[in-house]
Amino acid sequence: MINQKNYGLGTARSAIRELFEYGKKQASILGADKVFDFSLGNPSTPAPKAVDEAIADIVKNSDPIAVHGYTSAPGSIETRTAIADSINRRFGMDAKADEIYITCGAAAALCCTLSALTFSSEAEIIAIAPFFPEYRVFTEGAGAKFKVVDADTVGFQIDFEKLEASITDNTAGVIINSPNNPSGVVYSEDTIRKLADLLDRKSKETNHPIYIICDEPYRELVYGDIEVPYVPKYYDNTVVCYSYSKSLSLPGERIGYIYVPSSCEDAKAVYAAAAGAGRAMGYVCAPSLLQTVIARCIDVQPDLTDYKINRKLLLDNLTSYGYKCAAPDGAFYLFLKAPNGDGNAFSEMAKKKNVLVVPGESFGCKDYVRISYCVATETIKGALPYFKELIEEC
Amino acid sequence: MINQKNYGLGTARSAIRELFEYGKKQASILGADKVFDFSLGNPSTPAPKAVDEAIADIVKNSDPIAVHGYTSAPGSIETRTAIADSINRRFGMDAKADEIYITCGAAAALCCTLSALTFSSEAEIIAIAPFFPEYRVFTEGAGAKFKVVDADTVGFQIDFEKLEASITDNTAGVIINSPNNPSGVVYSEDTIRKLADLLDRKSKETNHPIYIICDEPYRELVYGDIEVPYVPKYYDNTVVCYSYSKSLSLPGERIGYIYVPSSCEDAKAVYAAAAGAGRAMGYVCAPSLLQTVIARCIDVQPDLTDYKINRKLLLDNLTSYGYKCAAPDGAFYLFLKAPNGDGNAFSEMAKKKNVLVVPGESFGCKDYVRISYCVATETIKGALPYFKELIEEC
Repeated sequence: MINQKNYGLGTARSAIRELFEYGKKQASILGADKVFDFSLGNPSTPAPKAVDEAIADIVKNSDPIAVHGYTSAPGSIETRTAIADSINRRFGMDAKADEIYITCGAAAALCCTLSALTFSSEAEIIAIAPFFPEYRVFTEGAGAKFKVVDADTVGFQIDFEKLEASITDNTAGVIINSPNNPSGVVYSEDTIRKLADLLDRKSKETNHPIYIICDEPYRELVYGDIEVPYVPKYYDNTVVCYSYSKSLSLPGERIGYIYVPSSCEDAKAVYAAAAGAGRAMGYVCAPSLLQTVIARCIDVQPDLTDYKINRKLLLDNLTSYGYKCAAPDGAFYLFLKAPNGDGNAFSEMAKKKNVLVVPGESFGCKDYVRISYCVATETIKGALPYFKELIEEC
Repeated sequence: MINQKNYGLGTARSAIRELFEYGKKQASILGADKVFDFSLGNPSTPAPKAVDEAIADIVKNSDPIAVHGYTSAPGSIETRTAIADSINRRFGMDAKADEIYITCGAAAALCCTLSALTFSSEAEIIAIAPFFPEYRVFTEGAGAKFKVVDADTVGFQIDFEKLEASITDNTAGVIINSPNNPSGVVYSEDTIRKLADLLDRKSKETNHPIYIICDEPYRELVYGDIEVPYVPKYYDNTVVCYSYSKSLSLPGERIGYIYVPSSCEDAKAVYAAAAGAGRAMGYVCAPSLLQTVIARCIDVQPDLTDYKINRKLLLDNLTSYGYKCAAPDGAFYLFLKAPNGDGNAFSEMAKKKNVLVVPGESFGCKDYVRISYCVATETIKGALPYFKELIEEC
C-alpha cells in the first residue's frame, strides 16, 4: 500500500550512480590510485574563496535571525534584485526582481517549471538527445509525457526535421541544455535562431506558446572563444533554469533560480504557476544563508584552470589514439564515440581495467560513453594507457 | 496553457501571509511601534551560538569540495548516523542511519512522505483540526484526498469518535502535530495510546497499515514539566517528519529529516518510496553545509528564555481580561477563543487597532484566532491594552 512509481524511482539507481558506487568499492579493495573514476559530474575545483569569505562574514556580522530566517517564497528581494541586475548587465535584458524565483538548485527550478507548464495530463515535454537522464523523471513527476528527439550525431546540434516531426498540439515545451551534459557541446547562434523560428511557427500552428525550458548550469564553463547565446534574446517564450552548482562549485548547497522574462506569453501566470508548484512540493524558500551569499558573490567567476588542463590532456591524447568525440566547448564532459560502436560494451570493457565511463544509452545515445573530466589530473594521466589499450582491443 | 491548479496555489496567499504583508504596509505608514503583528511563526530567538561557530569553523577548516559537494540523496552518512544516535539516546529507540532521510525541512519531509503513502488516487490522508493549513496543499499535491476531523475544542486532544468515523478502506495515514500549530497543545500519553489502539484496530479491519505521519518541528519547544510522547514507541507504523527550523532557529535554511523506524510495515519500501518521491520533485540532497552543521550541533538545545517570558506575559494578562485559550504547553502559539465567537470578525476588529491575529478558519476552527508569541516582548506589552479594549467591546 505505497506509491509504486515512487518506490520504483527510489530503488532504481541511475547508471551513473551505479558506476560511482562500484568505483568506491573497487577503490577500497585495490587502492584509490588503481581506479579511474570518470562517472560523476561533481566539480573538482573548490568554491571560489570569495564564497567562503562571504559565509564567514555573514554569520559573524549580520543579524542572525534575518540570516537564517524565512525569506519570502520567491527569495529575498535583495538577492532577486542582484540576479536581475546581473542578467541585465551581462545579456542586455530588462529583467526585474519579480521575474526571478530563487530555487533549491536547477533540479527544483526544472521541476517547478515543468509542473507549471503541464497544462493537462496530455501535455508533452520534448528533450533532445543527448540529454540529462533526470529530465525524464522530472517531467513524468510533473505529470507530463516525455518525448525524445534523436541526436544529431554529426555536430551534436539539433536535428530540426526530427524535432519538427515530434511537435504536436500537446507540446508544452522543449528542454534545451547548452553547454550540454553529456556532450559538452554549445548550441551555436545559428542553432538557436533556427530553433526560435521553428517554435514560433509551431506555436502559431498549434495556437499556443511552446516554451523553451533553458537549463543552463554549465553557462559559465566554456573554453576558448565560444560564446553561449542567451536564449531569451532569440525567443520570447523562454524560461531560464539556472544553478550555481557548477559555476560556484556549490552542488550540495542547492541554490539556483527560475527567470521568467516579461517577453513570455502569460509571463506572470507562468511565474505564479511555478511558485504554486514549488509550494505544493514543499519548497518553502531556497536556503537563506546561501541566498545572501549569492547576492554578495553575484559577479564571482569560476576558476577554470584545472578543467582546462584536464580537457586538453584528455582531448589531445584520446584523439591521437584515434578516438572521436563531440566538440567539447563547454561543461566538463567528453562524449566519446565507442570505438566498437557500442557504449554499453565499451563501458564494460573499460570497467575491467577499472576505468569508469558512463554508457551513453541513458543519455539517449547508445553508441557513446560520457567521460567527466572534473577529476584530479593524476586520474587522467593514470587512465591514458588504458584508453590506448582499449581502442587497440576494439 | 499552464497548470491551473499550480496557478491557483501561486496566486492565492494564505491568510497568515496576507496579514503579515498588511502589517508590513501599516508599519511603513504608522511606524513599526504602532503595529502589533502576531501573524507569523518565525522564531524570534537567534540560532544558538554553537550553530554559527560551527558554520565558521567548517568553512575555514574543512575540505571545501566536500563541504559544498553533493551528498548522497538521503544525506551524508555522518549526519544520518548522528541523528539516529541522538534518537536512540533520547528516546530509547534502535534507529539506524539507513532509516533516516535528510530533507530540505519538514515541508519537504511531509511532501515526500505523503507522496510515498499515496498508493492510488483514492488514497486519503486525515488531519485533525486545528491543523497547519499547508497540510491540505501538500496532501493534494501528492495526489491524495485530504480529510479533516473536527477539533476537540474542550482539551484540544483528539475526538476519537469523529476520527474513527472518518477512517475508510482508503485511509493511508493520519497526520498529527504535537506540540501543535496553532493550538500550542501537546498530545498526552493517553491520547497517543488511544490513537495507537484505534489505528491498530482499523489497520486490521482495512487489511492494510494506516500510518501516523508525525510532524514534530515543535518537539523541543515545551514549557513546564510536560513530556512529549515519542510516537514510534507507541505505534509501530509511525513515520517521523522533523525539522530544525524552530529548535535551532534555522527556518530559512531548510533542514530536517524523515525517520522510518524498522517497526513500520514495509519500512524499507516506505523509505524507498519517500526517496523516489524526493527524486521526482528535484530534491537532489539537503543543503550540504547545513548537514555538517547538524552533525556537529546534534545535542544543542534551544534557548526558550524569551518564549517563556512572552508566553507568561500574554497568558497571565489575557486570562485576567477574561480570554479563554487552549492549554499552551508547547510551540510559540496561543489559540484564543474569539470572545464574540467568530474568529474572522474578531481578527477584523483587532486589525482596526493594528493588532494582527490570524483567524482560526484556515486551521479548521472558525471560532478561534492564533497569536504567535515569537515576537519582541515590547510588542506584547504594547498590544495588551488593545486586547483589553477588544474583549470589552465584544
